[in-house]
Amino acid sequence: MMLKNHDCGTLTKQNVGETVVLNGWVQGWRDFGGLLFIDLRDRTGIVQIVFNPEISKQALDIGSRARNEYVLAIQGKVVERDPETFNPNIPTGAIEVRVTDVEIVNSAKTPPFPIEDGVEVDETIRLKYRYLDLRRPEMQKTLLLRSKTTKVFRDFLDENGFIDVETPILTKSTPEGARDYLVPSRVHPGEFFALPQSPQLFKQLLMIGGLERYYQVARCFRDEDLRADRQPEFTQVDIETSFLSQEQLLTMMENLMARLFRETIGVEIPTPFQRLTYHDAIHKYGSDKPDLRFGLEIEDVTDIVRNSDVKVFASIAASGGVIKALNAKGCASWSRKELDDLAPFAARYGGKGIAWITVKEGEWRGPIVKFFKPEEIEALTKQLNVEEGDLLMFSADKLKTAADVMGNLRLKVGRELGLIDNSQYKFLWVVDFPLLGWDENEKRWVAEHHPFTRPRDEDLPLFDTDPGAIRAQAYDIVLNGYEVGGGSMRIYRRDVQEKMFAALGFTPEEAKEKFGFFLDAFEYGTPPHGGIAFGLDRLVMLLTGRTNLRETIAFPKTASATDLLTDAPSDVADRQLEDLHIRLSAKAIAAKAKTPEEAPAGQA
Amino acid sequence: MMLKNHDCGTLTKQNVGETVVLNGWVQGWRDFGGLLFIDLRDRTGIVQIVFNPEISKQALDIGSRARNEYVLAIQGKVVERDPETFNPNIPTGAIEVRVTDVEIVNSAKTPPFPIEDGVEVDETIRLKYRYLDLRRPEMQKTLLLRSKTTKVFRDFLDENGFIDVETPILTKSTPEGARDYLVPSRVHPGEFFALPQSPQLFKQLLMIGGLERYYQVARCFRDEDLRADRQPEFTQVDIETSFLSQEQLLTMMENLMARLFRETIGVEIPTPFQRLTYHDAIHKYGSDKPDLRFGLEIEDVTDIVRNSDVKVFASIAASGGVIKALNAKGCASWSRKELDDLAPFAARYGGKGIAWITVKEGEWRGPIVKFFKPEEIEALTKQLNVEEGDLLMFSADKLKTAADVMGNLRLKVGRELGLIDNSQYKFLWVVDFPLLGWDENEKRWVAEHHPFTRPRDEDLPLFDTDPGAIRAQAYDIVLNGYEVGGGSMRIYRRDVQEKMFAALGFTPEEAKEKFGFFLDAFEYGTPPHGGIAFGLDRLVMLLTGRTNLRETIAFPKTASATDLLTDAPSDVADRQLEDLHIRLSAKAIAAKAKTPEEAPAGQA
Repeated sequence: MMLKNHDCGTLTKQNVGETVVLNGWVQGWRDFGGLLFIDLRDRTGIVQIVFNPEISKQALDIGSRARNEYVLAIQGKVVERDPETFNPNIPTGAIEVRVTDVEIVNSAKTPPFPIEDGVEVDETIRLKYRYLDLRRPEMQKTLLLRSKTTKVFRDFLDENGFIDVETPILTKSTPEGARDYLVPSRVHPGEFFALPQSPQLFKQLLMIGGLERYYQVARCFRDEDLRADRQPEFTQVDIETSFLSQEQLLTMMENLMARLFRETIGVEIPTPFQRLTYHDAIHKYGSDKPDLRFGLEIEDVTDIVRNSDVKVFASIAASGGVIKALNAKGCASWSRKELDDLAPFAARYGGKGIAWITVKEGEWRGPIVKFFKPEEIEALTKQLNVEEGDLLMFSADKLKTAADVMGNLRLKVGRELGLIDNSQYKFLWVVDFPLLGWDENEKRWVAEHHPFTRPRDEDLPLFDTDPGAIRAQAYDIVLNGYEVGGGSMRIYRRDVQEKMFAALGFTPEEAKEKFGFFLDAFEYGTPPHGGIAFGLDRLVMLLTGRTNLRETIAFPKTASATDLLTDAPSDVADRQLEDLHIRLSAKAIAAKAKTPEEAPAGQA
Repeated sequence: MMLKNHDCGTLTKQNVGETVVLNGWVQGWRDFGGLLFIDLRDRTGIVQIVFNPEISKQALDIGSRARNEYVLAIQGKVVERDPETFNPNIPTGAIEVRVTDVEIVNSAKTPPFPIEDGVEVDETIRLKYRYLDLRRPEMQKTLLLRSKTTKVFRDFLDENGFIDVETPILTKSTPEGARDYLVPSRVHPGEFFALPQSPQLFKQLLMIGGLERYYQVARCFRDEDLRADRQPEFTQVDIETSFLSQEQLLTMMENLMARLFRETIGVEIPTPFQRLTYHDAIHKYGSDKPDLRFGLEIEDVTDIVRNSDVKVFASIAASGGVIKALNAKGCASWSRKELDDLAPFAARYGGKGIAWITVKEGEWRGPIVKFFKPEEIEALTKQLNVEEGDLLMFSADKLKTAADVMGNLRLKVGRELGLIDNSQYKFLWVVDFPLLGWDENEKRWVAEHHPFTRPRDEDLPLFDTDPGAIRAQAYDIVLNGYEVGGGSMRIYRRDVQEKMFAALGFTPEEAKEKFGFFLDAFEYGTPPHGGIAFGLDRLVMLLTGRTNLRETIAFPKTASATDLLTDAPSDVADRQLEDLHIRLSAKAIAAKAKTPEEAPAGQA
């Protein structure tokens, strides 16, 4: 066949007069005035090719047999179009290619959906025919940008002395953490590999191994129940370094992000990024990944209403809870239904309700207004900057719940008031996460990040007095309300590790039992180290303005962890299970007996 | 702690006078004349640091507590050494750092083996303490070069318009091919994912999806019995392209290899590479991956000895076999034992023996000489260029066996005669592999590569007359006797695919049943495409002059597919198996009952 020497989408007036060979797919065709016009598409875009019987009757005859998605190879001459037929919608709109020779390289059945952007088709159909879905320009653009994204990461990390090291996919199941995917061993009957939830262990071992700076675009696996923004396998850009301070690492990562956004989508990201402590993030924005594209800060009015006649405020304050308030400017006009909907909204986040006050015609209205003393109204007016037309909303609860309710309310109001500038990219670091959290079930402290996260040096004495107040050298990088990465400095000193284990309630023997060889490794001269991991899928989603992680992945899985294209997972032959020394459980056998219509392995 | 602002191994006379902070590990230490000398090591190398009581008594006191593999942070001044204490063996040998301040960042137990190159220690110990093994300079150099290798691949492919696309690790078990690793599904009881043996299916789907050029540094998995040069998980640089001819692709890959060798080890590889047909490779070198760093071609003497009185030659020739000969120049002096060892050598490759003739003092000697007619001797003398001192060796067998025996004999003789220049990198392409091979058990043709490999256009008529003679558009890239990559052009025309399936003995229904959705995909406008995959582990092995794939992998597995560091695979909790709807087989339970001393999951 004739092999292309030009791309369809890049031909311009510069090419006029040239004879070119193009290969591509038929995007559309029409007969007009004895001529045949075909829009020919390749990865770079579309160009109009014209079959004219006066140029080649034979080419016209062959071309006339082409239908949508046929693969053509053509030779032709690039000519400028008549000005009245310019197509300003495509970059090649000023030219067309007059065909002198054509070859139908392959035919095509009619695709189940049109190959074009913004196509309205059920996602299950798109996933089943992903190979056709991928022909759509927006999918190709996304995959290209994803490829470019990892390239920028790699280039930057390479230039900064990071070594790309591959860590195992077949590794060991860890007793802590999320649910593992397991792989039965054929050579060792009854034993299993696990797929890694992250390369955490290995990246720390590489630091102990003296590599100093490591990175990997790493596939990770979590067998969790899926949500819209989770995939059973996902990709993280995994980074670890020795001999850098947290501040040095964060600055380096800011430069990386700035370069990424500049080189992929041409957006300048100002550095340094804002830093927000976990404490402030929760108190001011009700979230550890606040969207800072708008203000609308949450206020703490606990002290104002501590002795209020609003009984629920007083009792919550007395029991150590908080009263959080949000002033939705100009929302006094919300309908009764909108106000009524606040209760179920709060319930979604575990809250018992949202008290509200509207300010209309200089008057505070709402069920709780009558219980306020004048000085309380005065103090609230001042702290919340209350003006005519405002809607004040309150959540009284334990801090965690009140923050969650008000954080989500803040987002809702921000969206409804149009406060969010979608063209903005607002990065921030959330720092000083708590090292430990109290587990009410186990009645003990548990690690918020993991048991090797380094506490802040100045908080070390708190191990003995107030473990819950210890701040970790842990940080998340947040973009527009999404956590796009996170990490921590790791403990490298044995005395600190021992304090940590003691705080978690482990005896040295228990620690040894739980963490085995990993603790041994720390005995041989561990350097100070720390790292970060970026969620690649989510980052690409934000860079491309998508709202669904599946759009960023060539062959994603559905919410029930199936691949609609290959029909994985699937049945396998009994012989395979025998080789692996496993049998199906009674439940699995029963489940399969109920669906005899399912095709056996190898069929589709 | 003091964080480094310089690397140990890069300090030179240029830095004399500078005050530097270094972080690193103690490689060794000695007291001499009231001073303390420590060799401090980081990723970049070693530098000598000196503690002098006249500079800082306190630093000397602290430094004196350091032992091998302790982590130190030091501040000091770079000074030129006295000429008589120059160490020409290390790049920093002209300078030393006089310590003004020191911090013991971490202590270390005595490592189980010395942290230095060429260490003589059992590999199982090295793998168990891989985090220490990785500190050895030769391991770090290998991982650095591996990182550099993938970077060069990526840069080159990127510049040539290839898109890096990640394909699934959790995918579908294929009924053909090697043994799959399986992953039980929790969500779909009784169903399994499989880990990919290669992204073959997905890379072809990406071509159907119009991506045009794809690559991926892809992890692949094969649950096969391991040899020295196999790992259960391995990495291939996977490449696929549309709209390129085989010749264009091969040329592009030659440029890629030339760039790789230039940028990683500074070696210029001449292009284009030699091309050798599969037929010639087998006949002349007895191998489809011949080492062409030396000649010593195998000769076919079947026609000369067809009617010989050497009965075995005549009968083999009569039954369609071949008689292959090798002239080992100057080897007439081989001992009787060496000659006797030829029989077991042949047996190792399935041969029945190796006939030999020595040429000493102008006379041919050996058991078969007396059966030769003078004209046979004359013809052999001419074809094999027989001279005084030569050793002639013959293998008479089916082509495959004779080639295998003589190919290995050629390597043995080449090595023993010192014909192989180890500093040379000799690339070649082996092309025109047969499309089909006859399966004696199944009594049918089977695909030598896979059923989607494209036959050469001019061989298409042979489907009807001589399927075994059809040459595939398949190619291997061979370096110094190792296959470092291989691939093929793929079938994209339905009529050719149908001929292929017919030749394999599949009805259209059987083909549909076996290949399912993948065949469906081919119905929607498949472009001409093809690709190649490079074995990254092996390529890095050859680039670094190693002889063991494990040396090129940070955390490899042993020949019994275990990870000695993490002790994977391992037992898992019953609860995990329940979640996955599987049980152990009776055999697995019995096997585990026999080894109660094994540590349960999570212990080490």
